[in-house]
Amino acid sequence: MNGADALISTLIANDVTACFANPGTSEMQFVAALDRNPAMRPVLCLFEGVATGAADGYARISGKPACTLLHLGPGYGNGLANLHNARRAFTPVVNVVGDQATYHRQYDPPLSSDIHGIVSPNSLWVQSADSPDAVASLAAEAVGASYGPPGGPVTLILPADSAWLETKAADPVLAQKPVRPAPDGAAIDAAAKAIKAAKNPVVLIGGQACLADGLAQAARLQAAGVTIYADTFLARIPRGAGVFAPKRMQYFAEMAMAELQGVDLMVFAGTTQPVAFFAYPNRPSVLVPQGCQTLSAIARAEDAVAGLTALADALGAPKTGPAPALALPDAAPTGNLTSYAAGASIARHMPEGAIICDDSVTSGAGVAAGVATARPHEALGLTGGAIGDGLPMAVGAAVAAPDRKVISLNGDGSGMYTIQSLWTMARENLDVTVVVFANNSYRILNIEMERTGAGAAGPQAAKLLGLGDPSLDWVPLARGLGVTATRCDTAEQFEAAFAEAMSQRGPRFIEAVI
Amino acid sequence: MNGADALISTLIANDVTACFANPGTSEMQFVAALDRNPAMRPVLCLFEGVATGAADGYARISGKPACTLLHLGPGYGNGLANLHNARRAFTPVVNVVGDQATYHRQYDPPLSSDIHGIVSPNSLWVQSADSPDAVASLAAEAVGASYGPPGGPVTLILPADSAWLETKAADPVLAQKPVRPAPDGAAIDAAAKAIKAAKNPVVLIGGQACLADGLAQAARLQAAGVTIYADTFLARIPRGAGVFAPKRMQYFAEMAMAELQGVDLMVFAGTTQPVAFFAYPNRPSVLVPQGCQTLSAIARAEDAVAGLTALADALGAPKTGPAPALALPDAAPTGNLTSYAAGASIARHMPEGAIICDDSVTSGAGVAAGVATARPHEALGLTGGAIGDGLPMAVGAAVAAPDRKVISLNGDGSGMYTIQSLWTMARENLDVTVVVFANNSYRILNIEMERTGAGAAGPQAAKLLGLGDPSLDWVPLARGLGVTATRCDTAEQFEAAFAEAMSQRGPRFIEAVI
Repeated sequence: MNGADALISTLIANDVTACFANPGTSEMQFVAALDRNPAMRPVLCLFEGVATGAADGYARISGKPACTLLHLGPGYGNGLANLHNARRAFTPVVNVVGDQATYHRQYDPPLSSDIHGIVSPNSLWVQSADSPDAVASLAAEAVGASYGPPGGPVTLILPADSAWLETKAADPVLAQKPVRPAPDGAAIDAAAKAIKAAKNPVVLIGGQACLADGLAQAARLQAAGVTIYADTFLARIPRGAGVFAPKRMQYFAEMAMAELQGVDLMVFAGTTQPVAFFAYPNRPSVLVPQGCQTLSAIARAEDAVAGLTALADALGAPKTGPAPALALPDAAPTGNLTSYAAGASIARHMPEGAIICDDSVTSGAGVAAGVATARPHEALGLTGGAIGDGLPMAVGAAVAAPDRKVISLNGDGSGMYTIQSLWTMARENLDVTVVVFANNSYRILNIEMERTGAGAAGPQAAKLLGLGDPSLDWVPLARGLGVTATRCDTAEQFEAAFAEAMSQRGPRFIEAVI
Repeated sequence: MNGADALISTLIANDVTACFANPGTSEMQFVAALDRNPAMRPVLCLFEGVATGAADGYARISGKPACTLLHLGPGYGNGLANLHNARRAFTPVVNVVGDQATYHRQYDPPLSSDIHGIVSPNSLWVQSADSPDAVASLAAEAVGASYGPPGGPVTLILPADSAWLETKAADPVLAQKPVRPAPDGAAIDAAAKAIKAAKNPVVLIGGQACLADGLAQAARLQAAGVTIYADTFLARIPRGAGVFAPKRMQYFAEMAMAELQGVDLMVFAGTTQPVAFFAYPNRPSVLVPQGCQTLSAIARAEDAVAGLTALADALGAPKTGPAPALALPDAAPTGNLTSYAAGASIARHMPEGAIICDDSVTSGAGVAAGVATARPHEALGLTGGAIGDGLPMAVGAAVAAPDRKVISLNGDGSGMYTIQSLWTMARENLDVTVVVFANNSYRILNIEMERTGAGAAGPQAAKLLGLGDPSLDWVPLARGLGVTATRCDTAEQFEAAFAEAMSQRGPRFIEAVI
């Protein structure tokens, strides 16, 4: 057994069974070993940003890491942005980055670079397996480290000779899977006491607190008179009928501050103090009202479900909290196609258990409003702000949950970042419906330009904010990548196209011209 | 004047006048300032890998840096791979990476990351302009540092508040532009002495030694009985009729070693000892025959033209050396379309002064053979081995040299990496003819798999090496991005399509099915 076999068999033993890959020469032993280890599913991605975003989406849904297979420093670099998003989502990802043979590194061949330096900023753990005997134990360490808590990407560097040489350390090694510690009882008590004393208390939840069990406990707090807010961008949150819907922290600082006016206590559960996505001249950085008390009750790494349960119990909260009833739009939307009209159609036809992968930027609010009381579903958000994760996440989510409908919502600017994702959807026949909201613009930047005090865009600036001239023609693009595609200019067309997509299996692409 | 204006006016004062950009909120002040500084040409790229590769291609042709405008760590990450190629090409690039406002960094908002860590492995110089008064002087330092010698990418981090705040340091600052030192006379004398004593001497040239003036001197050495080899992958080399054509170091180690058998001296001029691109079991790392003497005569940072001239003079070489006469294929190729047939058509129709941007991997040899005695042209190669530079480099080369025909040659695997480039070609109406050699495969990996001793690909491995299932349909892809496109299945079709592309201005796309 060589090092590559040892690696894959240890990954499989630790339930890492999907590999999103774009390999090169230094990874050929890993590739060959896949045929001897068929429990690992290889998924080819035509660009590494697809592979890393898919691993992110896979882990968000399955709760366990996938591995990626990447070609040295530049291959990792191509996937870096979506690993930034994964780091901000606290999702476990095991990156396997091939490297030169150990003895060849000293000659600094053209593809060599400082891999350790490139990967460190987005890796919870980095090691290089510099002998075949080190591979299995380091792979187990990598898997364990990826779970955190609260989890994130890790990187195992695999020199070519560590993969091709025989190893005596051939037995799979099992990872230590860490457990989230219970929150400090005193912190929970302090939070309960402060909430009782406050006039207008808020609990801000994030991370694990926003999964189903955490939301159920947060709903109890709401029922006890505490206002619950969730972070603006969430790795994963159940939504829709029967699911408690916390308020969301507004993206724009001034709107968030207006909404929080009068709040005299903010307690953080599974997250930290809210801050503005960007600073702007004369606008606040920290989104906490003046004079408002803040308390960290439950750290990100702690068991937020246990903590929220204890807090609700301490407050004598009822056993259950509010949740919306199912309410779907009666009629199909008509007329101009807007993100709100699209949201209504999505609500009408999206089946229970659907997964929405959201990178739709300025079009997101319309859909979110539409589906608020739709059939229960889950939403995966753009946690790190690096656009181009909506299509790759959908690849990974669909691999993780083949029986659930996946809906990928994208701006046109975002969608172009990792358009190669469509090909993987076609090859793997993934049940993903892709929507691109085509407004021919980096619309958010037109808004942000004014907010940063930079003034209105002149002709030079406008060139950098607009996607027109020429307009992207998405339908042939999608078809060229192997996905059936439709263009919708009206709400009626979108309604029909989306309904049809929901009635069938396999990848579908809808250009929503808004 | 704010910091953004100070930055752009200093860049312009240092003749940095093209900006390949994909900005975000933190770069809005830079974007707005473009309208007040119209000498800077903004070029929007729909993915950062296009922007950085374009800056690489621009600098290779213009001999001066462009700037990029990138959005924090993830934006740079998306462009990292082509900056790796630029580093390996020793091309100057000034990356401007926007960051959070200085006072906002402490809150670690979602888009924050360790920018310094991410950029350092591919930056000769990194600084953050943490006040508006620091911007102009650091920008000048950045430009100066990018020239090296031998040059490479640098990174100026620009916090949002340094861009939006007013500065008193508003005057443009001129960069120190370093001069390549002359090589050590003793090293040249030693090389001349060793060459005279050797039976079968080789001079290996690279970098600046492969530009026109260096080649002319290398040709003199060839005329004096020295065999001249050039590095396998070159940033830029003139080729064709009237231009000395050095041999090339073979890519595969065993072929290189076979060809060098009997060589008893290798002198390095503008480059270093040749090494294999990858290590393989039981194959050499260093491509120097056993017992062969090696001498470094001219370092990369030194003036290779002066050094080669001195060496040729010391050897009493004739004033000129060999150069091929113009020789074009008489007849248009017919029958099956191969890379050799395509090379013949390219040779027949490519005008003098054309620029070939080559990321064609296994199809490259066929074209190189075809154009060896074609009209004089230049070729830009994939210096760092990170595929996906052939389309972006063509964007940059065409911006740098609007009067020259640019020909971008790509494998299908490579072309998919940065397919977004086509849109920028359309928007800027760049005179680029793109050829994608579609073999539905990462062909090189099928070869490498055997060479690494990994054996033949089984069904799982084959999934990662093949691009079929489904086949990419390039013509609609290109049209969707705004470029006129043709599919060619035969040599006759390619001949007609390529001839037509050469007869017109503006972007053209040719899928060459091989």
